[in-house]
Amino acid sequence: MNLHSIARYLPILDWGRRYDRSSFGGDIVAALIVTIMLIPQSLAYALLAGLPPEAGIYASIAPILLYAVFGTSRALAVGPVAVVSLMTAAAVGNIAASGTAGYAAAAVTLALMSGAILLALGLFRLGFVANFLSHPVIAGFITASGILIAASQLRHLLGIQGEGNTLIEIVSALWPHLGEINPVTLCLGLSAMVFLFWVRKGLKPLLWRIGLGPRMADLVAKTGPVLAIVATTLVTWGLDLGAQGVAIVGEVPQSLPPLTLPSLRPELVRELALPALLISIIGFVESISVAQTLAAKKRQRIDPDQELIGLGAANIGAALTGGFPVTGGFSRSVVNYDAGAETPAAGAFTAVGLALAAVFLTPLIHYLPKATLAATIIVAVLSLVDFSILRRAWAFSRADFAAVSVTILLTLVMGVEVGVTAGVVTSVLVHLYKTSRPHIAVVGRMPGSEHYRNVLRHDVETQPQVLSLRVDESLYFPNARFLEDQLMRHAAEKPGLRDVVLMFAAVNDIDLSALESLEAINTRLRDAGVRLHLSEVKGPVMDRLKRSHFLDEMTGEVFLSQHAAICALSARETAA
Amino acid sequence: MNLHSIARYLPILDWGRRYDRSSFGGDIVAALIVTIMLIPQSLAYALLAGLPPEAGIYASIAPILLYAVFGTSRALAVGPVAVVSLMTAAAVGNIAASGTAGYAAAAVTLALMSGAILLALGLFRLGFVANFLSHPVIAGFITASGILIAASQLRHLLGIQGEGNTLIEIVSALWPHLGEINPVTLCLGLSAMVFLFWVRKGLKPLLWRIGLGPRMADLVAKTGPVLAIVATTLVTWGLDLGAQGVAIVGEVPQSLPPLTLPSLRPELVRELALPALLISIIGFVESISVAQTLAAKKRQRIDPDQELIGLGAANIGAALTGGFPVTGGFSRSVVNYDAGAETPAAGAFTAVGLALAAVFLTPLIHYLPKATLAATIIVAVLSLVDFSILRRAWAFSRADFAAVSVTILLTLVMGVEVGVTAGVVTSVLVHLYKTSRPHIAVVGRMPGSEHYRNVLRHDVETQPQVLSLRVDESLYFPNARFLEDQLMRHAAEKPGLRDVVLMFAAVNDIDLSALESLEAINTRLRDAGVRLHLSEVKGPVMDRLKRSHFLDEMTGEVFLSQHAAICALSARETAA
Repeated sequence: MNLHSIARYLPILDWGRRYDRSSFGGDIVAALIVTIMLIPQSLAYALLAGLPPEAGIYASIAPILLYAVFGTSRALAVGPVAVVSLMTAAAVGNIAASGTAGYAAAAVTLALMSGAILLALGLFRLGFVANFLSHPVIAGFITASGILIAASQLRHLLGIQGEGNTLIEIVSALWPHLGEINPVTLCLGLSAMVFLFWVRKGLKPLLWRIGLGPRMADLVAKTGPVLAIVATTLVTWGLDLGAQGVAIVGEVPQSLPPLTLPSLRPELVRELALPALLISIIGFVESISVAQTLAAKKRQRIDPDQELIGLGAANIGAALTGGFPVTGGFSRSVVNYDAGAETPAAGAFTAVGLALAAVFLTPLIHYLPKATLAATIIVAVLSLVDFSILRRAWAFSRADFAAVSVTILLTLVMGVEVGVTAGVVTSVLVHLYKTSRPHIAVVGRMPGSEHYRNVLRHDVETQPQVLSLRVDESLYFPNARFLEDQLMRHAAEKPGLRDVVLMFAAVNDIDLSALESLEAINTRLRDAGVRLHLSEVKGPVMDRLKRSHFLDEMTGEVFLSQHAAICALSARETAA
Repeated sequence: MNLHSIARYLPILDWGRRYDRSSFGGDIVAALIVTIMLIPQSLAYALLAGLPPEAGIYASIAPILLYAVFGTSRALAVGPVAVVSLMTAAAVGNIAASGTAGYAAAAVTLALMSGAILLALGLFRLGFVANFLSHPVIAGFITASGILIAASQLRHLLGIQGEGNTLIEIVSALWPHLGEINPVTLCLGLSAMVFLFWVRKGLKPLLWRIGLGPRMADLVAKTGPVLAIVATTLVTWGLDLGAQGVAIVGEVPQSLPPLTLPSLRPELVRELALPALLISIIGFVESISVAQTLAAKKRQRIDPDQELIGLGAANIGAALTGGFPVTGGFSRSVVNYDAGAETPAAGAFTAVGLALAAVFLTPLIHYLPKATLAATIIVAVLSLVDFSILRRAWAFSRADFAAVSVTILLTLVMGVEVGVTAGVVTSVLVHLYKTSRPHIAVVGRMPGSEHYRNVLRHDVETQPQVLSLRVDESLYFPNARFLEDQLMRHAAEKPGLRDVVLMFAAVNDIDLSALESLEAINTRLRDAGVRLHLSEVKGPVMDRLKRSHFLDEMTGEVFLSQHAAICALSARETAA
């Protein structure tokens, strides 16, 4: 293996060799800002995943370092994100109760499996599987997940019990406890939420007015969650609100990330296999779209297969250091980018900052109310909720609308795993259904041209003894019989028929079932004294047909173009 | 509802009104021959399904009658068939042990569910779902099933224990018992088998030589199984071979089919749901191909959706009269056809004959050795085994070969349900994979014509400032990003580029994900000072694009043909 091929798998060798003092300066400033930003986010997503708060910080250290070595994005920040944390809670919640040792153990196994899947997809260059998650399905899934996440945090905001993986479970779990709402918790949480919404909408214009530049205003506004945490922690500590029933984070171990060895018990692996696959693919799709959006701004290139390797390494790192599944997150990456991160080294500095925080700052969050973290999560995820995809899909095509609405509905009522799977399956089934009943048009010549179009849409010239059919689909098993039926029906409507020309301009592939149908068509037409011709057969299809005996048995010819076919057949008719 | 629409669901009203004495003569002769033929076949397939022999006869009476009322084929004979019986054994064997009351009860439930599914598919005109079983997958499945069936009957032939649903299970179940082979059973079974093979290959030429007409010789040859049964039963009775350990059919109740009420316990229904669906579809595909083959010979028409209703009714009939899942069988239908059946009334007469046999003939089969039935089955199914599909698929396309070999392999080692499901899933995945990486060709003008073809395959004319790309696939979510990457790569290779023309002749559909990709392409090209045009956009795709804002935002135009695009763009270039 020469240096070039090593470098392919280690992008750090590329940017590392050209690292200079100016990059260092940018990176260290970005790291400082991002470290402050990441602390509340990490704590909150650990809560969402059902894990102790320190797990969120642990899950941000090793993954960031490993992604810095293997990833291709300059600005991507890897760590816990909302949707993946929710999916982790759903998957691990099926195996153990939140707060038990079994729960945390299952979470590291899930991270390891997810890392292994990502790594395998990357090494075998299978990144294209992510394309099967269509844009509408992803949009629908994110919207529905946002609602689920917000609903799942209501219990922390209200200070009551009520867990669940679907909207129905959550609502019916909250319902009987509504009488037990803790007013102090609710006050704290609502204040934090109102403050955070105001920071998003009102703070930035205010900062501009007092003379801050737009970039600085942006960054200050992003420290909102930190301010909310500091303020509510101080209030809770000062007024001893813990004694009044406000749930607080409590004792957090003061240590570097521990070394964890994920269990690979066969039944655990079996139960987590599907969730791990879904988390990997969803996480990859989220991460790559963030990475590509940021890279496009600086005209940098993202290699999807190398990204899989980077994310795989990050997740394996999370698994070995007491974390849970991670991916490249939108909000943390944008902060990183806006703060001026030049290279992945910014991530490495952030990791150092977080490690220091894990050792020195954890005692300070003892009095942090869980309601504040819930408020942080709710405000963050509600910005993901966007139903406009339903309207856009409806306007464009019923097929896309079906996929989006199935995804949203099933995610809400049956949970994240069923929802995203159903979305993909619906998209594929709708596609198969459509291709199983292809559009088949009778075509004629556009007067004065050599171009042939649908007789129903254009005023074209046709011949009584020639039937020209354009098949608007590749021919394969679901539509093989359909073509046969349609062609014979059209042929039966033309009594003086001598020749059928199948215009293959839109036939991109042909399989054995379709070949058998073509053979049947040829035989049936021959028995009726009609010849079968093909025109505009594309190279790859022609190559395929030559591998069978069909072209020898076909009663007619293959013409280069539809026009050549019509000219030749008309000339013969005149001669006869 | 007028008579016409009733007649649509009751084909009997059509042929029944024109029924005359000549048809009656043909039908009654056919019925007599088919009745004799069906007795051994029904007994044998009941054995294969793990049910008592009389169940095979019961499963042939009500279904035949009901199909005669609702079916559209004139010659199809409905009853137990080999593959469906094997699938029944696999499905019911998971629920109860063969020979128990629970086993027979599960079999009638399976028939009822299968009937309900067929009926529903027919009433909602969903017969096209059967098209998703491609020809190669069916051929592979039938071949593998034939091997499984033959293997499953070895134990009866050898007189030992050894059941199983897969080749591995069967072989490892037989292995420890190989020392216990019953030599008398083996002798009887082998003799029957050799005799039956000789009847197939050697008897017909012999009959011709002694002066029988070919049709008569054919029919006599088909009574082979009956002769084998009569001879081995007489030998077993005369020499009292039952006392020497030859397994015999034993006591068979002398009665008309009983009335059975299938259980619909939720857990039973849940366990049988997938098998019932697979049996319905496999049974339908087998039946419809037999029906269509026979109908084509007499230029009659088969209505697939009405066939579903006919088979649904037949299965519900089997469920209510102590039977098990049935479908139109190849061998019995061919006998019926060859024997001169003119209308479905032949089936009704056969049902009467079988009812008489159930009442009067069952005592005669007390001494029938099971080894003879096993021999009948083995000889019948080995004719289904045909590996040539592997060779044909390999020669034609690797995709078809993958589907066939997965089907054969998984059917043999994991059983019928996994095998056929894997075959369908493989076909679909291969299709999706291929369409996710479409062929995209740079095209140029064929000199002296208005026709545009691939620059790599043809000697064509191109312009330096125009890039013409032909996209050989409908644009949808799996290939949306691929198009974007390929187009930008081709564009980057042409420095003087001013215009990109996407030739949409092969784009048959477009979804929201692809639209978003086109918008991204348009934006990226615009930023680079290049205009995007489309040509040869088909009607349905144009309609779809008009439902979005894309055409307003596109920097270029939509041209009717590629030639029109090149002419217009070249003229502008010259003017500039």
